[in-house]
Amino acid sequence: MTGEWIYLNGRVIPLREAPVSPVDIGLLRGYAVFDLLRTANGRPFLLEEHLRRLHVSAASLGLAVPSTDAEIVAAIAELLVRNAHAEATVRFLLTGGESADGMSFDPATPTFMIMTHDLQEPPPELYERGGSLISVEHLREIPEAKTTNYLTMLRHKPRAIAQGALDLLYHHDGRILEAATASFYIVRGRDILVPERDVLYGTVGTFVLGMVREPYRIVEGDVTLDDAYGADEAFLTSTTRGVVPITRLDDRVIGGGVVGPVTAELMERFREALAAH
Amino acid sequence: MTGEWIYLNGRVIPLREAPVSPVDIGLLRGYAVFDLLRTANGRPFLLEEHLRRLHVSAASLGLAVPSTDAEIVAAIAELLVRNAHAEATVRFLLTGGESADGMSFDPATPTFMIMTHDLQEPPPELYERGGSLISVEHLREIPEAKTTNYLTMLRHKPRAIAQGALDLLYHHDGRILEAATASFYIVRGRDILVPERDVLYGTVGTFVLGMVREPYRIVEGDVTLDDAYGADEAFLTSTTRGVVPITRLDDRVIGGGVVGPVTAELMERFREALAAH
Repeated sequence: MTGEWIYLNGRVIPLREAPVSPVDIGLLRGYAVFDLLRTANGRPFLLEEHLRRLHVSAASLGLAVPSTDAEIVAAIAELLVRNAHAEATVRFLLTGGESADGMSFDPATPTFMIMTHDLQEPPPELYERGGSLISVEHLREIPEAKTTNYLTMLRHKPRAIAQGALDLLYHHDGRILEAATASFYIVRGRDILVPERDVLYGTVGTFVLGMVREPYRIVEGDVTLDDAYGADEAFLTSTTRGVVPITRLDDRVIGGGVVGPVTAELMERFREALAAH
Repeated sequence: MTGEWIYLNGRVIPLREAPVSPVDIGLLRGYAVFDLLRTANGRPFLLEEHLRRLHVSAASLGLAVPSTDAEIVAAIAELLVRNAHAEATVRFLLTGGESADGMSFDPATPTFMIMTHDLQEPPPELYERGGSLISVEHLREIPEAKTTNYLTMLRHKPRAIAQGALDLLYHHDGRILEAATASFYIVRGRDILVPERDVLYGTVGTFVLGMVREPYRIVEGDVTLDDAYGADEAFLTSTTRGVVPITRLDDRVIGGGVVGPVTAELMERFREALAAH
């Protein structure tokens, strides 16, 4: 559930008293970016990385976050106290603001809000058995920005749910990009293959890849669907799910259908990092 | 300006008392469709066609309009009286409704609103001199649906304005599709070439093409950028602009840079249709 208190354009107010205008360009024209972080032991995790990514996303749309980072940090602290989640996700949402004519907007008066939600973690079985993905041809419109455009994701979601899939795996021109709501990596021998182009910067992904140790190594470049089908291991990373083994892609089994040693180690290290936060 | 009264989920209420929830999926995930019609002599123009397209757009996203067409007609009539525009545009906006978890929504409880705005018509000179377009490689995600996703449009808009362009012309894999906010057609000899695939159904465009008379004929199919550069005439059609001659595309002049006879006749016929409405 979403917390009862929300930060909107500089004030912490009740969610039900935080109206978004029907003529907000984020609603009328989908012109908005967001970001989402999680807490660990009640404290924001990878806060700086998420703020940095928010600023990058905003700049991609010619927008700027109207609150300072210090104001944001203070607002998050207040929201976490008021909303009293056990553990939370913290969502930033930035739009171009209200539009007088339904198409124009003034970047000087954006709409910026911070919401918190109860952290929803996947069931433990997912980490033991691994999850499955469905591949979908799709290149996000502004890959480096975390925009609110989830048209393709939400349209395919009923099919994904029906097939028991955890997420979609986007690919374009033969290249794997990322999952709809996560970063995606594969292990081949001692190489961890990292899709390099046309993907969102992964906050958790970058953190997790930073924990890779010899003899394994990171190899950034183009990764194909066939690379994934034939991988020794595959895993995704996301804010709410951490490191998740992927053992099926479409109708193919990856890595014998079991959680591989590299994925297992990264899962464990990431859990330790959360616990120690 | 937007009218002070708005129809929201069955009620006509003041715009400022018509809050959209910060957790509406139309805002959080851009999951929304819309449509826009104009009045002529104070009455909705091509109302049935716009309603039909709204239903098509909704169905593409697995949504349904929660108001009956009769309720919509009555709501428009009430809004037009209350908001007292000289001439208006009427905007429908349909989203997946509020989301408990930031990703899921219940199609049974959508958000549906109707707003009205003052009709903004282009200056008369545009119809005398013609307008220019900038070509941009882009295929909309769900071409048959009028979604709220205008990321590409709004990102390129500052450049278009700087170059004095009226709109963007989207093309993909060598095929011309449509302008960002209009349908686009070219005239070559006696053929009026109509991009057939991956375009939104044009309400005004279809109406205007229906006024084409012998010896001219409609030819639906693929149209290339080179076809456009070398065209005898080009024009776009849209709800707010009607038929607009296009005399420049990128750095090229089309049809000698003057308004051609086919375009001139269709402009005139369309004006007559509006006047007679």
